[in-house]
Amino acid sequence: MTAEENATTAVGPNGGRPVVPTRGARRPLGMGEVALTGGFWAKLQATNATATLAHCEEWMERLGWLANFDRVADGTTGPERPGWSFSDSEVYKLIEALAWEYGRSGEHAYDAAVRRLTARVARAQDPDGYLNTAFGHANHPPRYSDLEFGHELYCTGHLLQAAVARLRTWGDDELVAVARRAADHVCATFGPDGLPGICGHPEIEVGLAELGRALGQERYVEQARLFLDRRGHRTLRVPFGIGSGGYFQDDEPIRKAATWRGHAVRQLYLSAAAVDVAVECDDAELLAAVERQWTNAVARRTYLTGGMGSRHQDEGFGEDWELPPDRAYCETCAGVASVMVSWRLYLATGQLRYADLIERTAFNVIATSPRSDGRAFFYANPLHQRAVGEESDDEESDDGEESDDEVSPRAEGGARAAWFDVSCCPTNVARTLATWHTYLATAGERELTLLQYAAGQISAQLGDGRTVEIEVDTAYPHDGLVTVRVLRAPAGPMALRLRVPAWARGAVLDEGGHQHPAAPGLAVVDRQLVAGEEIRLSIPVSPRYTWPDPRIDATRGCVAVERGPLVYCAESLDLPPDTTLEALTVDAATAPVERDGQVLVRAFTTPRPGPGPAWPYGPAPAPHTPDGARTVELPLVPYHQWAERAPSAMRVWLPARHP
Amino acid sequence: MTAEENATTAVGPNGGRPVVPTRGARRPLGMGEVALTGGFWAKLQATNATATLAHCEEWMERLGWLANFDRVADGTTGPERPGWSFSDSEVYKLIEALAWEYGRSGEHAYDAAVRRLTARVARAQDPDGYLNTAFGHANHPPRYSDLEFGHELYCTGHLLQAAVARLRTWGDDELVAVARRAADHVCATFGPDGLPGICGHPEIEVGLAELGRALGQERYVEQARLFLDRRGHRTLRVPFGIGSGGYFQDDEPIRKAATWRGHAVRQLYLSAAAVDVAVECDDAELLAAVERQWTNAVARRTYLTGGMGSRHQDEGFGEDWELPPDRAYCETCAGVASVMVSWRLYLATGQLRYADLIERTAFNVIATSPRSDGRAFFYANPLHQRAVGEESDDEESDDGEESDDEVSPRAEGGARAAWFDVSCCPTNVARTLATWHTYLATAGERELTLLQYAAGQISAQLGDGRTVEIEVDTAYPHDGLVTVRVLRAPAGPMALRLRVPAWARGAVLDEGGHQHPAAPGLAVVDRQLVAGEEIRLSIPVSPRYTWPDPRIDATRGCVAVERGPLVYCAESLDLPPDTTLEALTVDAATAPVERDGQVLVRAFTTPRPGPGPAWPYGPAPAPHTPDGARTVELPLVPYHQWAERAPSAMRVWLPARHP
Repeated sequence: MTAEENATTAVGPNGGRPVVPTRGARRPLGMGEVALTGGFWAKLQATNATATLAHCEEWMERLGWLANFDRVADGTTGPERPGWSFSDSEVYKLIEALAWEYGRSGEHAYDAAVRRLTARVARAQDPDGYLNTAFGHANHPPRYSDLEFGHELYCTGHLLQAAVARLRTWGDDELVAVARRAADHVCATFGPDGLPGICGHPEIEVGLAELGRALGQERYVEQARLFLDRRGHRTLRVPFGIGSGGYFQDDEPIRKAATWRGHAVRQLYLSAAAVDVAVECDDAELLAAVERQWTNAVARRTYLTGGMGSRHQDEGFGEDWELPPDRAYCETCAGVASVMVSWRLYLATGQLRYADLIERTAFNVIATSPRSDGRAFFYANPLHQRAVGEESDDEESDDGEESDDEVSPRAEGGARAAWFDVSCCPTNVARTLATWHTYLATAGERELTLLQYAAGQISAQLGDGRTVEIEVDTAYPHDGLVTVRVLRAPAGPMALRLRVPAWARGAVLDEGGHQHPAAPGLAVVDRQLVAGEEIRLSIPVSPRYTWPDPRIDATRGCVAVERGPLVYCAESLDLPPDTTLEALTVDAATAPVERDGQVLVRAFTTPRPGPGPAWPYGPAPAPHTPDGARTVELPLVPYHQWAERAPSAMRVWLPARHP
Repeated sequence: MTAEENATTAVGPNGGRPVVPTRGARRPLGMGEVALTGGFWAKLQATNATATLAHCEEWMERLGWLANFDRVADGTTGPERPGWSFSDSEVYKLIEALAWEYGRSGEHAYDAAVRRLTARVARAQDPDGYLNTAFGHANHPPRYSDLEFGHELYCTGHLLQAAVARLRTWGDDELVAVARRAADHVCATFGPDGLPGICGHPEIEVGLAELGRALGQERYVEQARLFLDRRGHRTLRVPFGIGSGGYFQDDEPIRKAATWRGHAVRQLYLSAAAVDVAVECDDAELLAAVERQWTNAVARRTYLTGGMGSRHQDEGFGEDWELPPDRAYCETCAGVASVMVSWRLYLATGQLRYADLIERTAFNVIATSPRSDGRAFFYANPLHQRAVGEESDDEESDDGEESDDEVSPRAEGGARAAWFDVSCCPTNVARTLATWHTYLATAGERELTLLQYAAGQISAQLGDGRTVEIEVDTAYPHDGLVTVRVLRAPAGPMALRLRVPAWARGAVLDEGGHQHPAAPGLAVVDRQLVAGEEIRLSIPVSPRYTWPDPRIDATRGCVAVERGPLVYCAESLDLPPDTTLEALTVDAATAPVERDGQVLVRAFTTPRPGPGPAWPYGPAPAPHTPDGARTVELPLVPYHQWAERAPSAMRVWLPARHP
């Protein structure tokens, strides 16, 4: 088979998509089966392709993270090495994103970029398969001498995920060969008779599991299972300043843990791998454990945006109900990782709650991170920004205006940053956006399920071998009308199933001349489809108030506004000039309205609020409406758009007066 | 003069007390002028003397922090050194506490301990005066090679404070000689013609200023001024993971900063030194800057307890109004340091607001840290503890029961810990408690001002040379009646001034057969006093509700209960067995009451509350009183007593229903 043939078949129905379980309730569609044709996500995908991918490569070249591979290859590693020990992983995530983008678009520039980067990476691989630019060579610490924070296996895991993308969008090549050698090295080194260690940052597990699936190598999956079961026995040393072993999820075996805790990205990558292993090994106990942890963490440790991580300290989950809007961490990468977990759980179980959380997280965390030009990003995604610019972490830009020419530690000043010292988020967004269309629908034995709504085309093979082709026409989430046009109907009845989101009230399914109320769950058309017919799902997306559980102390007395899947927020830019976000109370007796494309709430504001009393605690409760308050109609913006116009103060949860 | 004579005179009216400004609005009393005879603080002082001091020495011996000095002296420093780079400072704070305790009690065991420790410290001093066990010797990094985090000058500052205590309670001795050599070394090394650096952790400044006062060495004060003015020009490198230069207060000169920010203890030690320098150099601009920062931070960055530090991340202040009860850091040392600043500002200005904050912080932060037996401590002092034990930082005691035989990172599981990895708080509490009586009153030209209330005796020399002797009889804060008995009245009129706390309502002054209402501020008796007469200040201390400023988002809709100077809290131990702190709403239409010595609030609870909904955000606001709620009378305990009975969940701010 020539490379061209290989590429063609790999992009077909069995080709590009990040997760292909051997079994499960649903079959994910490949890049050859689904494409976006316009709208919210198509625009993000286009910006990702045309701006973000090159942006990431430029920054990694500029900072020397790419040259680290050259130095290993040339034997010129010195005592000073640019970047953190995990900078290799950014290169791998970029390669992964480029590979998916090649699969999505077929444009050869992305293929060329994969080859260009692969060549540099491959040269740095040691003869025995070890590949890392921070350990194991001249002037480096020895291999695996810092399992807690060295991130060697973490980096390898991302290499394997990149190879999976390449394998499924192009075929077996040098990158796949490098990854195979690296995976073999890991199995030889950490196998049952090898070193008994685990990596401080889970990721190798999910990489091994998927590469094992992609190459049909069960021993890679088995090694992932071994790493999973080794974890939770306190073998990682907990350094000072890091919470407990829970930071690493090494305090308790994953089969026993009640909920998610510790470093959020670590926890979620680990959980994703656990689902993979549970599915491949038919391990119902392990799957049930992840489902239980998902249930508990989503019920009590998750933000309205879907964001996870309540603490800057340890980038971690908090306790149940600990969800401060202002210090919400909600790392972009935790949003990506949450989608990874929920997607795997959905494929395994078919439960729609997982697709609900994916939608929420995608629109309100993942889409929030990149600036509209794709060249700056949020790392953390708080739900309340008090100060504009005063709290920038960047010593070189303390005015809060993150410069597009500077590395930012965390972009905490209410503006996105071009690049970060730890720059995990841009490449994570890039690889996710490049595959986003593969999350839109799944196929079953005799059904096609639409999970996410975007204008696009789907040509899917059902489990029974029949093919169905549809076109989706929608301006979702701006508008809630989804029109499914049947382009090619299989012979005999099949089920076309449309997800009605959990937040939707009053949705209507219009098909075959009938209108049916559609409650949250599935709206199903199960009959002989007719080519050319249109099936319409109409989901009301007028703005609505959303109230928090009273146990979430940090949002007591506040209300949020949502519209469709979008969380909205108030930005200081939209306030009357003589007031501030601190002096704002929503009149929740009046529903939010939409007018001329703007979402508006009625609110009381206090003009020229004073600095406050000398001591902020006193004998009388604050009045619901302060003296001298006036009423304004305050425009809100979708949370994912905040700080797009300029750095701003912002809040999602608004103090509310209600009857 | 013999040592004995020296000791005697040093403990006299001009003797023991931590701060003796050259000028100022008020003169602090020395240990020879004031003594406690019983009650709240006398008990804490006794426990400190009989338990805590030995406890600290035992732990530092056991962990090798004391032996670090021996190793330097013996030339046996190796690559492994017990403790953090700043462990020397704990030894110095213990010596300081012992010196003050000797001054307070005159018991020779404390003098012997000072000598014992001094001998070991002195042996480690280099010939040029440099003294540090983590830098500058075999297997150490070079001197001053890590100004950001090496803490060398910080440690020296604590040595100088210890020497001040020794000088003022015993006299010039080996410890003072060591400190003098160390201070001379600092001046020679970092003087106008020396290294231009500053220490990442302020403390050398306050040490130099006070040693300069105690020895009449203006050049020490001048060196402190030099360090202060060097700060704020971004000369300290900001490492990754630490916020901005604000962490070190190196982002902006202290004369320009609007409020307190960054690491709280660093900020407050720096501010204390700034007041010292401002007073000694008659620098009104500098004094005004600290007053402005105090004003702004107390109004918007301070907890009801007086605690400071809203973030675990960076142990730092938050933004204005960022005061989460659950993640409040409120480090015990920041409470100590806040008292240091306020005391200096009170002495300089005579403004009572500083004494008000000292009272609040002493009762609710400093007194909260030590367990009643003086052998375990809180490091952080949050106002809300959600989980009992589940969140312990200690990998070896994840059940949350901090063992008395283990080092704890932060004692975050709702129980005090015997010792910490960074164990700054126990010795800081110890040195503060040993001097607490010197904060009770100050003398002026013709007046004596009582600032804090405790049973005790005062024999003070007024500025005009006359002496007044009084006895204070009170069960404060349990009871609000303060009886001042005049034991010796000076000839001619004088002013006896009693502070009426800012929180007090309806206080009454009873003197000379008359009763006067006493508003917050000063209740003054200005006349010829008569030996044997009694002057009574009666301050109502019935429990009261306190409400937060509505801009403090984290406590919206909540109320706290205070009684006199004490903040109260609800502990899970006191709940009906079938409910939790999460399911509690105070009926704020009913005032808190005191019955049989217990403070009680009326509250609604939900028996057997469920786990909560699958998604904690929904279309309806939570009812003010949940379905099935029943009414209970809930006992509250003083915050400083929480977790005394057992580890517990706790909250100061209680969700409230009010009309």
